[in-house]
Amino acid sequence: MLKLYHAEPAANSLKTLISFKEKGLEFESIYVDLHKFEQHEPWFVAINPEGQVPVVDHDGVIITHTTVIGEYLEDAFPDAPPLRPADPVGKARMRFWNKFCDEHVMNYVSMHGWHRMVGAIARSVEAGEFERLMARVPLPEQRVKWQTARAGFSEADLANATRKIEIAVDKAEQQLKQTPWLAGSRYTLADINFFAIGGFALSRLFPDMNVEKRAPRLTEWVARMHERPGVKAAFAMPNRTNPALRTFTGEAR
Amino acid sequence: MLKLYHAEPAANSLKTLISFKEKGLEFESIYVDLHKFEQHEPWFVAINPEGQVPVVDHDGVIITHTTVIGEYLEDAFPDAPPLRPADPVGKARMRFWNKFCDEHVMNYVSMHGWHRMVGAIARSVEAGEFERLMARVPLPEQRVKWQTARAGFSEADLANATRKIEIAVDKAEQQLKQTPWLAGSRYTLADINFFAIGGFALSRLFPDMNVEKRAPRLTEWVARMHERPGVKAAFAMPNRTNPALRTFTGEAR
Repeated sequence: MLKLYHAEPAANSLKTLISFKEKGLEFESIYVDLHKFEQHEPWFVAINPEGQVPVVDHDGVIITHTTVIGEYLEDAFPDAPPLRPADPVGKARMRFWNKFCDEHVMNYVSMHGWHRMVGAIARSVEAGEFERLMARVPLPEQRVKWQTARAGFSEADLANATRKIEIAVDKAEQQLKQTPWLAGSRYTLADINFFAIGGFALSRLFPDMNVEKRAPRLTEWVARMHERPGVKAAFAMPNRTNPALRTFTGEAR
Repeated sequence: MLKLYHAEPAANSLKTLISFKEKGLEFESIYVDLHKFEQHEPWFVAINPEGQVPVVDHDGVIITHTTVIGEYLEDAFPDAPPLRPADPVGKARMRFWNKFCDEHVMNYVSMHGWHRMVGAIARSVEAGEFERLMARVPLPEQRVKWQTARAGFSEADLANATRKIEIAVDKAEQQLKQTPWLAGSRYTLADINFFAIGGFALSRLFPDMNVEKRAPRLTEWVARMHERPGVKAAFAMPNRTNPALRTFTGEAR
């Protein structure tokens, strides 16, 4: 029995939803409302002590962190369509990109997402209530991030994040000059990773970056990704975010 | 044919050397002298464009990044003694810890190592020569790190790094209350990771942290790690660092 605790089909939740859909895995969808800070509710922290989505519950075994979940689904469901190359070199190429996405891209796109969307959520809460909500955040680093999002990130931090994203865009473009997918000749978890943490909405999120012009192969890859059946199915999951707050996906700014 | 480009048996190079030794893999050892900035020499950058050690060359295929290398050796040499659990949940537990080590521990221990040792190396070079050496560093982030190491990291940054390491020490201690090794019942790449990036010398590197008292199970784990045949064999590799500069390993301060 597979259960998936997740939020909207964006960022980390999108990443895991795409894996589930591509692999055709049946699962119980349990929506966690980040706008109501449900990820810090005692019932959820009892499931994931780090208070973060998504979370996979597989027959009672809890798996967290999207890159770990991605590999877990490959290992646990070897008969489902694979999203990981079969050969050792292919696996290493995929993991190189996953590591790059996790360490050098995700947090920087996330900072912009937090700045635009989570900050708005955080500021919508009154001060006393906000402090009460913050006291429940299990990870100290996440607490700092919420407080910074409420106050607003500095221009210098946002500019540095943008610079890191530009490096990532250029690096992906270079790779896609050599291979059709990030890890080589086939579509893998690395593509899903780069796509979900920002690739899917780069030009909407960062219009000044001129991604279409700067990175034509990446732009073509984004279009190809949007055609993937798993990607379409993941985006078809309900999005309960107030449309006015859909800044992360670029639908609002 | 396996070749390993590496530096002293400490930190990242130690991590890969332990894997090689535990698995009993024959390899050609190619020493890269970080004190002479050989990792930025054109001959080395031609092998690893990121200008970092260690690097595995397996029949001409280049694999970089220690966590990726660790999994690669498991995939490419399935008949050698395994350092990764066979079951999907065990693998996920190992990857959870690898991710934690890579993202929340390595850079913080590394900052102290750079501050104490790399800073001394960087300051030993005259200004004009230093600028010339820096111009060859391929990764912009690494260039900034070298320049900061030469100037010295700020007290605030070092204090924050220490705090992150304390969180890691406490987290490992909690885990080792429940399981003998970080990822569960068996010794894995996760143990090698935590050990190599600082675990092996925590009490020498951070005497004020009182690790023996603060984390008795972790202290016992460190002793157990030092008894591993692969760990002993890795430490038996030559250490060409000037003894006065062996600050990372705690032999000098």
